[in-house]
Amino acid sequence: MDKVNIRKELASVKEHWSQRTIGEANGQLFKVAKGLGATNWHKHDDQDELFILYKGCLTIQLRDKNIELHKDEMLIIPRGVEHCPTADEEVEFLVVGVNITSNEAGGKPVL
Amino acid sequence: MDKVNIRKELASVKEHWSQRTIGEANGQLFKVAKGLGATNWHKHDDQDELFILYKGCLTIQLRDKNIELHKDEMLIIPRGVEHCPTADEEVEFLVVGVNITSNEAGGKPVL
Repeated sequence: MDKVNIRKELASVKEHWSQRTIGEANGQLFKVAKGLGATNWHKHDDQDELFILYKGCLTIQLRDKNIELHKDEMLIIPRGVEHCPTADEEVEFLVVGVNITSNEAGGKPVL
Repeated sequence: MDKVNIRKELASVKEHWSQRTIGEANGQLFKVAKGLGATNWHKHDDQDELFILYKGCLTIQLRDKNIELHKDEMLIIPRGVEHCPTADEEVEFLVVGVNITSNEAGGKPVL
């Protein structure tokens, strides 16, 4: 049982919109990620998705409004709700959910 | 669906070792708490418990070692593992688990 430094884990992430798991508790994955630019609209029918910002401003577009997340702010996107995260400058964040969602179905842009 | 400012929620906590829920996702409660002084040894047989530090240094005593958690460090205590958190100066942290554990069975000191 060892502690994890979230900022160090974030610093070592190389690819945008690519999650890396840093811990697991009660069936939830705690994942770090960086983002820059646009993702694609998507939803997760099997899980709520929770974001906590560590750096920058992550805009979570929803169908009826946009929510701008800054450092130390948290947002829970309930399962089934369409969303599209974007960032004009690089952002760093923690994501919590039941599995890895940084894939094409999860809105990750195809390079 | 609204964002939550974790630091503001932490600032409004009045009582040490008393968790307040600020969000729920996939059956997990995301809770803020402050701590100062000693708690009692305890364990949770029904859940893993995850800590993320926001301020100060929280010492998690385990039976075989102590782990000192600082800002932006995370620790997962697996279910069934005895632990005893203490803090020489006031700490602020996020706790994740399936229910509120700031009770006597959860090590909260009786005042």
